[in-house]
Amino acid sequence: MLHVFDCRSKSEVSRKTLGTDGLDLKGFLRVVHQEFFIPLSETFVLVTTDRTVVDRDKFEELQDGITLWLLQHKDQPLSASIEEEIQFVPHFNTLVQSGANEYFVEGHKSLPCAFAELVDNALSATAKNTGIRTIEIRLQFNKADGKPSVTVLDNGCGMTSKQLNNWAVYRLSKFTRASSTIESENVEYVRPAPVPRSLNSDISFFGVGGKRAAFHIGDSVRMITKTAGSPDVHELVLSKEEFLRKEQNKEDVYKGTILNRKPGDSSHVTNDERFLRSLITEETGNKSFTAVVITGVCLEDIDYLKQHFLEWTRELAHIYHYYIHGIDGNKLNGERSVDRPNIDILVTLREKPPKCPRAINLREVDDDMQTLYINSAVSMFEFRATTSNGGTVEGILRYHPFLYDKETYPKDPYTAQEPVAEDDHENEPEGPNQARGKRDIFECFWNGRLVPYTTVSEFDWCTRPIKGASLPAECYSRFSGVLFTDDRFQVNASKLKFMDLELKLKNKDTIFTTFVNNQKTSKRSNIEKEFTQWLETCHENFDKQVKFIEYLGTITRTDM
Amino acid sequence: MLHVFDCRSKSEVSRKTLGTDGLDLKGFLRVVHQEFFIPLSETFVLVTTDRTVVDRDKFEELQDGITLWLLQHKDQPLSASIEEEIQFVPHFNTLVQSGANEYFVEGHKSLPCAFAELVDNALSATAKNTGIRTIEIRLQFNKADGKPSVTVLDNGCGMTSKQLNNWAVYRLSKFTRASSTIESENVEYVRPAPVPRSLNSDISFFGVGGKRAAFHIGDSVRMITKTAGSPDVHELVLSKEEFLRKEQNKEDVYKGTILNRKPGDSSHVTNDERFLRSLITEETGNKSFTAVVITGVCLEDIDYLKQHFLEWTRELAHIYHYYIHGIDGNKLNGERSVDRPNIDILVTLREKPPKCPRAINLREVDDDMQTLYINSAVSMFEFRATTSNGGTVEGILRYHPFLYDKETYPKDPYTAQEPVAEDDHENEPEGPNQARGKRDIFECFWNGRLVPYTTVSEFDWCTRPIKGASLPAECYSRFSGVLFTDDRFQVNASKLKFMDLELKLKNKDTIFTTFVNNQKTSKRSNIEKEFTQWLETCHENFDKQVKFIEYLGTITRTDM
Ligand SMILES: Nc1ncnc2c1ncn2[C@@H]1O[C@H](COP(=O)(O)OP(=O)(O)OP(=O)(O)O)[C@@H](O)[C@H]1O
Ligand SMILES: Nc1ncnc2c1ncn2[C@@H]1O[C@H](COP(=O)(O)OP(=O)(O)OP(=O)(O)O)[C@@H](O)[C@H]1O
Ligand SMILES: [Mg+2]
Ligand SMILES: [Mg+2]
Repeated sequence: MLHVFDCRSKSEVSRKTLGTDGLDLKGFLRVVHQEFFIPLSETFVLVTTDRTVVDRDKFEELQDGITLWLLQHKDQPLSASIEEEIQFVPHFNTLVQSGANEYFVEGHKSLPCAFAELVDNALSATAKNTGIRTIEIRLQFNKADGKPSVTVLDNGCGMTSKQLNNWAVYRLSKFTRASSTIESENVEYVRPAPVPRSLNSDISFFGVGGKRAAFHIGDSVRMITKTAGSPDVHELVLSKEEFLRKEQNKEDVYKGTILNRKPGDSSHVTNDERFLRSLITEETGNKSFTAVVITGVCLEDIDYLKQHFLEWTRELAHIYHYYIHGIDGNKLNGERSVDRPNIDILVTLREKPPKCPRAINLREVDDDMQTLYINSAVSMFEFRATTSNGGTVEGILRYHPFLYDKETYPKDPYTAQEPVAEDDHENEPEGPNQARGKRDIFECFWNGRLVPYTTVSEFDWCTRPIKGASLPAECYSRFSGVLFTDDRFQVNASKLKFMDLELKLKNKDTIFTTFVNNQKTSKRSNIEKEFTQWLETCHENFDKQVKFIEYLGTITRTDM
Repeated sequence: MLHVFDCRSKSEVSRKTLGTDGLDLKGFLRVVHQEFFIPLSETFVLVTTDRTVVDRDKFEELQDGITLWLLQHKDQPLSASIEEEIQFVPHFNTLVQSGANEYFVEGHKSLPCAFAELVDNALSATAKNTGIRTIEIRLQFNKADGKPSVTVLDNGCGMTSKQLNNWAVYRLSKFTRASSTIESENVEYVRPAPVPRSLNSDISFFGVGGKRAAFHIGDSVRMITKTAGSPDVHELVLSKEEFLRKEQNKEDVYKGTILNRKPGDSSHVTNDERFLRSLITEETGNKSFTAVVITGVCLEDIDYLKQHFLEWTRELAHIYHYYIHGIDGNKLNGERSVDRPNIDILVTLREKPPKCPRAINLREVDDDMQTLYINSAVSMFEFRATTSNGGTVEGILRYHPFLYDKETYPKDPYTAQEPVAEDDHENEPEGPNQARGKRDIFECFWNGRLVPYTTVSEFDWCTRPIKGASLPAECYSRFSGVLFTDDRFQVNASKLKFMDLELKLKNKDTIFTTFVNNQKTSKRSNIEKEFTQWLETCHENFDKQVKFIEYLGTITRTDM
C-alpha cells in the first residue's frame, strides 16, 4: 500500500491509497494512470517525499505505507502544502540504553547506584508491610545453577498484571498512570505525610529507575510478581535480544506477553535459567512479592561484584543508612533505639564451590561513612532550613574532636574525591581545613536515601568568620554534616544529583533555625550565634591536644 | 472487543475474542454462555487479570481490548499458565521530560548546556559546507512579533522528510537508523578520520539531544528544514499540549504530521507565531537549512536569557572555543592563525522597543575561560596520552607566571566551583596551591566541544614530587590544562560528563609522550622529566617576584 498525492495541478492536490500487491512499477503506473485519470500522452514522475524518482529498482525497495508524489517533473514546486503522516515511536534503546552512561560518574560506584534503584522500588513496595520488610539482592554466579543472574527480591505488595504492564512503560510515573483497568478504581497519588528524616519509603518519581537499572546491570530482565489479593503470579520478560529480533522482523517492539500462572509453577523455565526453579519454589510461602531477575551481566561486572563485595555493599549500606538503622543512625556503642526499623536488606552471593556462599545484612556494615561519622562524633547540632517556597530541610552537624595526636574526623577509604590530598605533601600543613580537608560538609538524603553525588559545601553561619573568630581555624574543619529533604527538592532522574538544593538553601530568604531533641529552640533563633556556642563548647570539652608548655627534664622511657 | 479465556477446566484453556458493541453485562454474558457452550445451570465468574470480578458497573468501565478470565469462582487457581498480550510504548514524557532535570547541575548553566545540544546538531549539519557555516541563536522576546521564541538556525545540509521523521524518534542514533525510505540508499555511519583537537564536527551520538534540549527550553518545538537536493521545505511540530490532547482522546501519541511545502510559503502560520513569517521569508535565499523554533519558554528563563546575556553567551563561547577560534584558540594579541575556521555562531536578541536588539558573534567573546587561559599563558607544554585500548588524548599545559605582586592564573568569575575559596580567609595563605587554588588542572573537550562538568585534577607526572622537589610548591599551581578526546571516550547522554576519562588516563598502562609543535619528541620520552624541565624554565624565565634583599634606606614616594 502506498499513499499517492497528485500534485501536478496548481490548484488542488488529490490523494489516493493504492495497493501494490503483485505489481511491478509498470503495473503500478497503469493503476496510477487510471486512478488519477491521466491521459496516456501526459508525462509525469512518481517521487518519494525526498524527491527521489521511483524507477523500476527503487519501486521494489519501497517500504510499505510510505507517501509518493505525482509530479509533472522531478523539480516541480509544490503548489499547495502536503501533509504527510508519520510515526515516531521511541526506539527501543530508550529502554535498553537508558541506564547505559547514566550511573557512571567517572566510573565509580555505578553498580551500587543501579542496585539502589531496585532497592528503592522494593522499599516503596514494602512500605505498608506489617511484618518485617525483607529485601534481598541475590547474586547467582554458580554455573551449575545456570547463567549468572542478579535478582532483587522483596516481600512487598507486588503488582497486578496491569501494574506490571505499567512498570514496563518508560516514563510512566505514579503521577500520570492508571493502576487499574477499571477506571473508577484508579486512585490518585497521595503524597505521604512528613516524617522525621523524610524516611517516607516513597522513593519513586520518574518512571524510569527499574528499567534503567536492569539494563545497566544486564541485558535481560524478568519481573516475577504477585499481589496479596490474587492467586496468580505474573511474569514479564524484557530483553535486548528480543527487541532486536522484533526490530529485524519488523514487528511491534513494544508488544509483549505477560505470563499468568499459579505460584510454584516453573514449567516454563529453560535449563540455562534453572536457578529460577528454586526461586519459584519459594513463591508458595509468600502472600505477595516481587522478584527482578537480571541476566546478561557482563563478566567485568561479575568480577567486580565478587571481588569488591565489601566495597559495594558498604556503599549500599551508606545509601540506605537511615532506613536500616533508623533516625539516629548506626550507633555502635550504647543505646539501640527501641523502634529500630523492620527493614532487612540482605546481599547474598553464590559462586562455584569450593567458594563459600556469602551473605551480609546491610545492617551489619559498620564502616560506611555515616556509621563512621556518627560514631566518631562527640556532639550534635541540629537545625532546620525553610526555603521561601515552603521546602524544609533537616540538618545535623557532628563534631569530630582532635584527640591527643590526631584528628578523629573519619577518612573515606574509597572516595577519590580529593586525590591531591591523598598523596600527602608530608610535612606541609594542609591549610586551615585540616581535618575535613577539601571535603564538603554535608551529605544529602532525598526521601531518606542518599543522593550520592550531591554534597553541600557549607553555609555562611558555619564558616569561620573573616574577622573576630574566637576559635582556632581547625575547629571549623572538625564537623561533618547531613541534610535530609523530601521530594520537594528535585533530583535528576538517576537520583545521583540534586538539581538546586544548594542554590535554594543559599538563597537569602532561606531561614535557618536550631533544634534540640527535635524541638525548635526559639522563634527567632540566631543560628550563627548558637552554632558558634556549640562549636566553642565542643572545642573546650572534647578537643584534647597535647601541649608542651615548659621544659622540665628528660625522662627515659624504659617501657619502649 | 474483549479477549476472554475460559480457564474453568483443569486441562485446557480456550480463548475467544468477543465483541461488546451495544451490550450490557447481561447481554455479554449471554454471548459468553453461547460461545463457550456453558450450560445455563453452571455458575462461573468473569474476572479481570487482577481478579476483579466484573459486575454490571465495572463492565461499563472496561477498557477496550483487555483480557478477561472465565473461572468457576473468583479464587480458582489457574491450572495452566495464560499468556496476556500487552503494549508498553514509552510514555510521551520520554520526550517531554527527557531534558527536565538533566541539564541542571546544581542549577547552573542549564540553559547554555541545552542550547549547546542544538549548536552541536548545527555544527554536525554544517560540517560539509563549502562556504561559511552560519549558526544563529535567535531570541525573539518582542511581543509585537508574537509569543516569545528561541530559534536555532543553521545553513547546514538540512533533513529530508524521512530524516526529519527520524529526528523525532527518541534514541534513534546515527548508529542505528536508516536515512532513506529506499533501502539500498541507506549509508552506514562512517567515523570521521582523526583531526587535531578532535574538531571533527561529529557531535551527535545518542539520538536524544535535540529533543531533550527543545523540551528543556520550552514546551513546543517546530522543526523547519530543507535539503539542497529538494525544492521542498519540511516542517514538523512536537508539543506537550498536543501530546496531552492526543492522550486524552486516546489517540496514538506518536502519530504526527510533516508539512511539505514550497520555500517562503507561510500560509499556515497563525498570528501568535507571526515571527515565523519573516523566518520563512528568509528561506528563499538558502539552498539548505534547518531552523529549530522553540516556544513555550518559561518567564523565568526569558528573564535569565535577557539579564545574563553576557554570562551565558560567554559560556557558549567557552564550550565551542576551539571550533570558533581554531586549534590554537583565541590569541588576542599576535598572529591570527591563517586557517581561521569558517564557523560563525551568532546570538541575537530582540526585545520590546525601546530596548535595542543585541547581537554577538561568539568569536568576539574575549573573557571565556579558555581565552583567559590562553592569553595569560607564557609557555605551553604539549603531550599525548594513549590508553591501552587505543584511545588517544591530546593535552596542553599552560604556564601562568607570577608577575611582580600577583599570580596571573585567571579567575573564573562565574564558577561557584569552589565557594570556600571565594570568601578569602584574608591573610591566611591558601596553602601550597595558591594560584590554581582547589581547581582541577584540566578542562576536557569531547569531539572538540567542552564537556562542562568533567575536569581532571592532575596526573602523577605533573604533581609536585613528595621528595626532592627542586622547584617551589607555588610553581606547581601555576598551570592550567586542556584535554582533547574523540568519542572513543564516552560521555553521558547530556554531554555534561565523561564516564571514565580520568579513570582510564590514570590507569598504569596509559602512556604519556610529549609533543613539540605537534611532533612527537622521542620514542621513549620521560614525560615527568621533560615536564619538570619545562616548569623550571617557566619559573626561571617568567616568574617575576619582587624580593626584598637588604635594607638600604627609607625613600618617601612623593608621587602617591
Ligand atoms: N519491587 C516492586 N514491587 C512493586 N512494584 C514495583 C516494584 N518495582 C517497581 N514497581 C512498580 O513499577 C513502577 C515503575 O518502577 P520504576 O523504578 O521503573 O520507576 P519509578 O519507581 O516509578 O520511578 P523512578 O524512575 O523514580 O524509579 C513503580 O512506580 C512501581 O509502581
Ligand atoms: N540542525 C540540524 N540539521 C540537520 N540535521 C539535524 C539537525 N538537528 C538534528 N538533526 C538530525 O536529527 C538527528 C537527531 O538529533 P538529536 O540531537 O536529537 O540526536 P543526535 O544528535 O543524533 O544525538 P545526541 O543525543 O548526541 O544529540 C541527528 O542525528 C541529525 O541527523
Ligand atoms: Mg523506581
Ligand atoms: Mg544532537
